[in-house]
Amino acid sequence: MLKAEYQRRGPVPQEVIEAVELQLPALAPGQVRVKVLAAPINPSDVLTLTGEYGMLPPLPAIGGNEGVGRVEELGPEVSQLKIGQTVLLPIGCGTWVTHLNVEAKKLIALPDADPQQLAMMTVNPPTASLLLSEFVDLQPGDWVIQNAANSGVGSYLIQLAKLRGFKTLNVVRRESAVAAVKAEGADVVLVDGPDLPKRVREATGGAAVRLGIDAVGGVATDHLAGSLSEGGVLVNYGMMSREPCQVSPASFVFRDVSLRGFWLAKWFRVSTPAQQVKVFAELTQLIASGKLKTRVAATYDVSQIKEAVAAAARGERDGKILIVPK
Amino acid sequence: MLKAEYQRRGPVPQEVIEAVELQLPALAPGQVRVKVLAAPINPSDVLTLTGEYGMLPPLPAIGGNEGVGRVEELGPEVSQLKIGQTVLLPIGCGTWVTHLNVEAKKLIALPDADPQQLAMMTVNPPTASLLLSEFVDLQPGDWVIQNAANSGVGSYLIQLAKLRGFKTLNVVRRESAVAAVKAEGADVVLVDGPDLPKRVREATGGAAVRLGIDAVGGVATDHLAGSLSEGGVLVNYGMMSREPCQVSPASFVFRDVSLRGFWLAKWFRVSTPAQQVKVFAELTQLIASGKLKTRVAATYDVSQIKEAVAAAARGERDGKILIVPK
Repeated sequence: MLKAEYQRRGPVPQEVIEAVELQLPALAPGQVRVKVLAAPINPSDVLTLTGEYGMLPPLPAIGGNEGVGRVEELGPEVSQLKIGQTVLLPIGCGTWVTHLNVEAKKLIALPDADPQQLAMMTVNPPTASLLLSEFVDLQPGDWVIQNAANSGVGSYLIQLAKLRGFKTLNVVRRESAVAAVKAEGADVVLVDGPDLPKRVREATGGAAVRLGIDAVGGVATDHLAGSLSEGGVLVNYGMMSREPCQVSPASFVFRDVSLRGFWLAKWFRVSTPAQQVKVFAELTQLIASGKLKTRVAATYDVSQIKEAVAAAARGERDGKILIVPK
Repeated sequence: MLKAEYQRRGPVPQEVIEAVELQLPALAPGQVRVKVLAAPINPSDVLTLTGEYGMLPPLPAIGGNEGVGRVEELGPEVSQLKIGQTVLLPIGCGTWVTHLNVEAKKLIALPDADPQQLAMMTVNPPTASLLLSEFVDLQPGDWVIQNAANSGVGSYLIQLAKLRGFKTLNVVRRESAVAAVKAEGADVVLVDGPDLPKRVREATGGAAVRLGIDAVGGVATDHLAGSLSEGGVLVNYGMMSREPCQVSPASFVFRDVSLRGFWLAKWFRVSTPAQQVKVFAELTQLIASGKLKTRVAATYDVSQIKEAVAAAARGERDGKILIVPK
């Protein structure tokens, strides 16, 4: 058994994490032993290793925030789960491991479906879903613009927008990413540049674009701000450029654009259980039925954690990086 | 008679404007001849000359958006005004002139008070007043933070905040500006720098700062964003640094700060006459009674328009630049 552990944080994330032997105690009453089937590396995991994230666990810590496993062994007094059941791991439990002991009541039984797709359901799909619903009251036929469109969230956002009848303008940073984003169902894909607002107006025929979604920062934020119509809302949820957002005051002052932020961790804190169930019930059904999915660039064993984290921290990928223990 | 006219726009504002002979036709029915007493040069006037403002008049144009004059001659069919009456000029009428013909019904009679202070009442005081009221529901005892605190708006904002019982944190870019801002009634004055958030927390004892007001842009915007408490609103209304606003995504994402813009011209467009009367009735009374005033750095004749605009465009001033025709 292995776990991917870090004793310190530092600017090069693959240098601080390593795979080490895992010892698990015997199961306590109410616990089950889970074998991990798949656990993604999200951008927030990389920022947690570098110390740049908004919430940092005490050290030493095990990496990984979400994932899916299979029940291998039942402890005393467990009746609600069966051996072989696929389960969703509790968020933030340290999922980059081969096995873990978990309280049975913290596990959510999942339908029989692709475990790699199910493993990515807790973080990126609700982020995409809430970015589309929490800031602007979009109506079918409305346009939304996002950058980092070839990211995990970007991919889910294209698919969810299509299901809700919205049209998407998708911005990527390189020509080689266009085809994959088009294949997700994007209405328009544009390579970023200073003339983005002009090309957006050409693509939409001048229609209103009231919601912009920024995961890049730097001048890319300004390109989105300039592409929004008067009174538009720009929501930032990431900083893939590793630069602060830059926005010309002209967009705020003369065109009444506003810039806000979205953090899923905060939504978990302030939303009601009923709101959470509503969001996740829809997403689970869509993912289990194969209607919502994203691309996997590569999978790695826990023993390959350094290579896996290095791959996730690199910008130019085509799909998510997953830990899939052997 | 003279007017300050420009035939083109360009990056060096004093190069495009010049004082030229003014010919005024005989008064038409309903018009009066006004001798201008004072008209300020606001930052928005400078940006109009450079072409960077959000609304640009057709060329050729006369400079100046606000000012105060004295009625010198009545045209036919004018009964509501008397010769010698001090009047507020209509906004945007081209006030950097020695004289102008105006429809009597567009003039607002003003009480007998310092014409230089009255001349500045249409643009900066309502901006300061609305920045304090339109974004966050501040209560007496609450803190507000602003930069460019030694600007015209900054000065009015300190005084209006004090009248409403709010406490002000004032940021300036140089030590030499601190004393003048303190003298306005500022609670705290700080020189800008990367450690501003830390010094703000020390000054407030960690109290919430829910409203930030930015007229500078560049990294100064980020320093204000970092000084706000969770959920705070940062409002931009200017770009004295001539750089785009920079804000770390961490403020938006992890601390739910939002960034918005304020433009007085838009408020004039969307507010009701009753809302406008309410704002200006209060400001006129405060200015006429001497309870609200700002510093005048220097006055210039219309013939000195190039020197006046150059002085207004320079950053390091201590007070407003006014055109006061001889």
